[in-house]
This record gives sequence, C-alpha cells and structure tokens, in this order.
Amino acid sequence: MSDRLPGYRGLALRALLDIGAEIGDLIRIIKDDTILEGILIPRSEYGDDKHVVIKIKSGYNIGVEITPTTKLERIGAETKPAFISPPPPERRTDLPTVTILGTGGTIASRVDYRTGAVRPVISASDLYSIVPELSDIAFVETEILFNIFSEDLTPRHWSIMAETVAKHIARGVQGVVITHGTDMMGYSAAALSFALQNLPVPVILVGAQRSEDRPSSDAATNLIGAVLAASRAPFAEVAVAMHETPSDDAIILHRGTKVRKCHTSRRDAFKTINAKPLARIIDGSIQMLAEDYRPRDQNRKLILKPNFDDRAALIKFYPGMSPKIIDWHVSEGYRGIVLEGSGLGHIRRECFPAIKRAIENGVVVAMTSQCIWGRVNMNVYSNGRDLLAMGVIPLGDMLAETALVKMMWALAQTKDPNEVKNLLLTNVANEFSERTVENIEPPRAVK
Amino acid sequence: MSDRLPGYRGLALRALLDIGAEIGDLIRIIKDDTILEGILIPRSEYGDDKHVVIKIKSGYNIGVEITPTTKLERIGAETKPAFISPPPPERRTDLPTVTILGTGGTIASRVDYRTGAVRPVISASDLYSIVPELSDIAFVETEILFNIFSEDLTPRHWSIMAETVAKHIARGVQGVVITHGTDMMGYSAAALSFALQNLPVPVILVGAQRSEDRPSSDAATNLIGAVLAASRAPFAEVAVAMHETPSDDAIILHRGTKVRKCHTSRRDAFKTINAKPLARIIDGSIQMLAEDYRPRDQNRKLILKPNFDDRAALIKFYPGMSPKIIDWHVSEGYRGIVLEGSGLGHIRRECFPAIKRAIENGVVVAMTSQCIWGRVNMNVYSNGRDLLAMGVIPLGDMLAETALVKMMWALAQTKDPNEVKNLLLTNVANEFSERTVENIEPPRAVK
Repeated sequence: MSDRLPGYRGLALRALLDIGAEIGDLIRIIKDDTILEGILIPRSEYGDDKHVVIKIKSGYNIGVEITPTTKLERIGAETKPAFISPPPPERRTDLPTVTILGTGGTIASRVDYRTGAVRPVISASDLYSIVPELSDIAFVETEILFNIFSEDLTPRHWSIMAETVAKHIARGVQGVVITHGTDMMGYSAAALSFALQNLPVPVILVGAQRSEDRPSSDAATNLIGAVLAASRAPFAEVAVAMHETPSDDAIILHRGTKVRKCHTSRRDAFKTINAKPLARIIDGSIQMLAEDYRPRDQNRKLILKPNFDDRAALIKFYPGMSPKIIDWHVSEGYRGIVLEGSGLGHIRRECFPAIKRAIENGVVVAMTSQCIWGRVNMNVYSNGRDLLAMGVIPLGDMLAETALVKMMWALAQTKDPNEVKNLLLTNVANEFSERTVENIEPPRAVK
Repeated sequence: MSDRLPGYRGLALRALLDIGAEIGDLIRIIKDDTILEGILIPRSEYGDDKHVVIKIKSGYNIGVEITPTTKLERIGAETKPAFISPPPPERRTDLPTVTILGTGGTIASRVDYRTGAVRPVISASDLYSIVPELSDIAFVETEILFNIFSEDLTPRHWSIMAETVAKHIARGVQGVVITHGTDMMGYSAAALSFALQNLPVPVILVGAQRSEDRPSSDAATNLIGAVLAASRAPFAEVAVAMHETPSDDAIILHRGTKVRKCHTSRRDAFKTINAKPLARIIDGSIQMLAEDYRPRDQNRKLILKPNFDDRAALIKFYPGMSPKIIDWHVSEGYRGIVLEGSGLGHIRRECFPAIKRAIENGVVVAMTSQCIWGRVNMNVYSNGRDLLAMGVIPLGDMLAETALVKMMWALAQTKDPNEVKNLLLTNVANEFSERTVENIEPPRAVK
C-alpha cells in the first residue's frame, strides 16, 4: 500500500504510480470506447487490487477495472474533494425549502486516510456540496445536531432531534431530512414517530450503508430520495428513506414505527415489517403504497411530545434465562420492561414469579416476539394466558425495538402504570397493523 | 358456543346441532358432488362460524364450508380420535428404523376441550397413530423425553436430548426425529449440532405451527418429512424439518446452526439465515441444496459432547443501554456474554469500560448483530475496532441465538477463556458460512 494512494494495491496501484497520481487528482481513464474523468478517491481496505475509483462530475463514484489495455492520464492536480464547502447557494424562491439535520453516521462520513477506516467527519452542508442534484429539488438549509455514531445516541438525543424538527417546521419549511447512522436509525425513527404528532409535513430519516468514498455508495441516491420525499411527498409522517433493492432503481419509504435494519451491509438492509411500506420513489416520482397515510397539510399544527424516560429495558428471552435479570431491573428502578419473548409471546414459567413481583412493584411489563414477523397472541397456550393474567401487556405485531421506544415515551407522558398501559395499547403512529396485513411475506429463503 | 361442540358457532353450530352430532362422531358431509366422511373435531376459538372440521381417514383435517345446500349426516357414534394409542405395529425388517423422541410442543398437542386453547398432551406414539403414512416410510419407535412447552426447556434438557439421541444411534437406528415446540426449536437445533459431532445418521427436529386438531395443521406433513429425512436422507447432520412455503408442497431441511423462527404463526416460519438450506423434500424425494454436507455413514463413530454451562447470557443492545447490566452479569458469576450489537457489531462507548472490566475478570464477550442477516465486521468503524482491541470476539455471520448456545457449549468444554475464544472462532457445525454466500437474500419487503 502507498501512503499517498490509500487502499490501492497490485495492478491498480501500479497503474496509478505509473502516472504519478495521488488522491484528489483529476484523472482520465480510457478503456475500450469509454472515456471517464473524475477525481481519484481512496479505496476501502477491503477492496480488490484491480479497480481504480473516481468521483465523476455528477457526484457518483465509479470503479473502473484496470486491464493491460486501460489507459490512465493525470489531467489535474490534487484538489481536496468534498472537504471544502462551497458558498451556500442563493435562495431559490421557486423551490420548496427543506432542512437537513446532521446527526452523524456513514452518510456523513469519509474514509480516514490514515487507517483506511470510516469516521464521521462531514458536515451536513458538505453533503449538500457532494450531491449537486439537490439544488434542483429543493432549497436546502442545514443544521448539525451531533456528529456521533448512531449506537451512541440515547433517548436524550431523540428529544433534541424532535425539538429541532419542531423548530424548523414552525419556521414553515416544506419538510425535514435527518441524516443518521443506519445502525440505530430504526429506533430513532420510532422515537420521532411518537414525539412528533399531527405532523404537517414529512420528516425523513436517511442513512447510507456504504460511505460516500466507496464506488458502491448509496449516500447520494438515498439523500436525493429523502430530499425529494421531504419536499414533495403527499404524506406528512416520519419515514426512513433507503434503497429498496441492491440497485439504484428505487428508494423505498418505510414508516418510522415499522422499520428495521435487517442486514449488516446490503444497501437494501431496511425492511418494513408486518405492513406495507409507505411509498416508493422511482425516476424522481413518488408512488404511495399505503392507503391510510396522513396527507401533507402545511396548516396542521404539530403536537410536540419530545420526552422519553430511559428507565425502560428491552430483554430478549433465551433458554434458561434467569428470573434474577428481571428482579435486578426492578431493584434498579426501571419503570418499564419490554420482553422479546418466543413465538406468540412466551417466556419460561421459572420467570413468572419475578414478572409478578415486577408488576406488583408498578413496573409496566409488555410482550413482543423475537420472531420479528407476525404478532403475539397470548391466548393460545397456558403460559401466555398466565402471563396475561398477571398483567403482561401483549403488543400485537409491534416490533420489539419500537415497543421499547414507545415504552420510554409512554413512561414520560404519565406516572400511572395503567395510563402507560393504555398508551401502549393505543395505535399512536401506525405501530400496530390491522390484522388484514398478517400475510405479509416473511423473509424468503434463498434464490 | 356449545359445551359438546367447542369452537363451533353460528351456521356451522346449527347444522351440527340439527343432526345431534358431537365431537368424535363420524359424520358424512355431502356438498355439491363431493362426499366426505370423517371424525368431527373441535375448532379453535378463533375460527369463523361457517366451517365444520373433520379428520378424514388419511389423518388430514379438512374444513368444509356449510351452505344452505350442504347436507350433514351422523353416521357413527363418538370415538375419541387419536387419544387411544393403537397396539404397536409389527417390526418390519424391510424398512429403516427411526426413533421419534417426544419433547412437547404444538406438534404433540391437542386443543383443550374445556378452554379451547392448546395444551401439550399427546405422546410420541400417539403421533404415530395419527399419521398412518409413517408406517410405509420407516419402522418407528418412540420415547417420550419431556412434555413441556419449548420456552421451558433449558440447557440441561439439551444435554438429555443429546445423550438420548446418542443412546439410540448406538443401538443402530437409521435416524432420529425429535418432536419439539417451535418457539425455541432453533436454539435446541443449534445445541444438538454442537453436542452431537461426527454424526453417522441424520437427527431431525420437527414441530408444527398449527396443532393437529386444526384444519390447517402442518403437523402430519412436517412429521412425514422429518421421518423421511431421518430414514433416507443422504446427509448425517442435525436439521430442522418444516414447511418451506404456506402450502403443503415442500418440506425444507434447515441446518441446525443456521435456522431461526421468523414468524409467529405461518407454517413457513423457519428460515435458514446467511446460508442455503440443507435439503428440500418434494413428492417424497429428497433434493440436496447444500453441497458441503456430511454424508450418512452408519459406521462413523459419534462424538458426544453433551454438556452446556448456563452461566452465559444473551444481551440485546438498545439505545442508552446501561453499562450496569454488563457489570451485574459479571458480579453474578456469568462466564460468557453474547452481545447482540447493532449493524456491523457495535454498542455504545458508554458500555466500553464495563466490557473491559468483564474481560479482565475472565468473562468471554462475543459480538453478533441484531440485523440477523449479514455478518459483523468490527474493523470498519472506530467503535468496533476499540471493542476488538479490548478482546471482544467477532462472530462473523453466526446467529445471535446460535452464538449463545455455542458460548454455553464452549464454556462447558474448558475453563480457559482463551480456549473458549478459540472454540468460538472454530467452525464446528457450519455455524459460520463462507463469505461467498454473503449475498443470500434478506427478507423481501412485500408482494
């Protein structure tokens, strides 16, 4: 590896050394009948030794395989791609205004030249400069809230996000986009769904599975989709915008309460569970998929309920799980426990006395299923019925992750466990699906 | 509802009362050009008011919609269907011998006539009497190990299962079937995969999503598939046999370490994750799907490693999770912790000191992903690299559930945390997939 050409090895490295290129140079690649020009960008440490990656004028990254007949030319000296923000564009009154809030994550990250690994370093306004198409869709304003990995976000950050969204909506923007690490984006999307009620305009969370430096980056297409949805979608809900398939053809909009990251690395990692996705964007046009959406209405008055109580835990049940784990949470002052039980909503009988003690101590205990697809039904087997009789709250087809977020939110709305229970069972933001969608496909096996 | 016709309401109840029928009677239904005869069985409490359900001679249950022109006749008095075991069949030396071990679950359950709910009550030999087709496939012997809900199974039960399987294999049977509750069947399948090494014959776990009394029961077809695989499959591995799709067309065989229950109620709830399924059964014939299977070889010597240490916990990470949860497990004497982290294998930095303390105390800490699909890669982001540096063990594409089981198993093989680590990183029973199957489909969105 070369210090000046991080990530490049073998054939590709040799070809670049031959023309004296370094990262940031404008280079031209001539291969067969195709001429490509762009800025040389670093490769990830996991790349092969055959491809050279350039960022072409549109902002997309392209990897070109170097063969013995490929010709390379260095046609311009190093510029630091995308690190210097251009001056802000002039306000265009003919376009809707969208606020992009930066919170961190891969979509706002670059490869660390020193280690080859990814660090969150780009500001939200940099994003705008990297994706020039945005300027034709909306007048974009940016605000950086945080610049942290999404796994480091806490319920307190959700409150700040919700309050900031409300502030920008009060200013009259046509939509809000939140750039977010994908790891915990599902949880934040659920949190905003409960905190931002009666929305007048869309609030779109967006992330990237591959950083903007990589040839296969989904950052630009996802961001374009998110801004399109925020500025023009007919719905006014909290949604997540990501690739529908591994290709760039479609961006899918998932409801904030029904979405889950289901793959560690694929661009189509996010899936709507137990429901239809909200909408799809193809060729710049938005198709609604759900019929029951809240229509956009700039005059509707947002109801902000930004508080969360973090004295709630998610406990995934496993064989032989000790009841002491439940007792410990009670003794530590937790007010709510979401169980990720088995099948239709079960845990072992050995834990029942601890569950009973927890509920007697005023702890709200709710049940979801680690199956992910389907819905809990605690009336079928005696273990389930006994849990119901103790006061465990069955949460239907709600995702366990959404259930935890809702528990934290409900606990912040009232001190009374019965009112928390009523809130949990109320369909606040489409976290419960109608029974008619029960036959939504579970994961497919293999191709 | 009638006490003597549990589950029946409306039209269907009236038609049955008209002919004085009760559960267990042999009845004839004439509808259009079709004549059906079978034993009247109770309906679940969730059924509609139009269908009458009879068990026909083949053992299948059929629901017939009652219309004004449908004719019903009571042609025989009440017999208790399937509750009385017939005398054991004569040993047929022309057929392979298969042991069916009963552990409980829906496949071995009946509707409780009193409450309409399902209770595990049928013995393994009853199963045999309900599915007469089995007698053409294999000579079946049965042993009841337990009769409990699978969520009540513990690592101690896995040891008993493994030892009993070994005992029957030592007797020279051609295969073993274990009937099991579906809720925790994935965990038990993983446990047996580690406990039963160098298998000479197949060990097939099988369950049912709908009890044998329900018209849509998958109990008979799954059991037939399991016995077929145990007696005739060319592989000698631990596998789970369940419906591949909602229809009865195919039974799919999942490797014990790569299978997960992904739907609360569908018959095709089980999915192979991050790999190809092992085999498929269509029309009684077994197609291998995986190429790298261990072939059946009656002379191979089983290596039994039936012990598990239950001082291991599965902790699913969530936003704001307190590091005290990790400290508590250490103070309680847990020897292993499997984290279900976010994305490529992350948890919040706030927990890092607690992870460090745990490892310094000799606790083995391993990382999986709550994404389910894909694989952890802790080299990409600094949070992941810092966890690696502390000694957290990245478990590739291993399922979190399988990882917990393997941790419990590895802890029982050695006292040395380094040896536990080496065992965790060794591919013992295909719990790690090659990187080439990385593009296995994640769940599909919607039809």
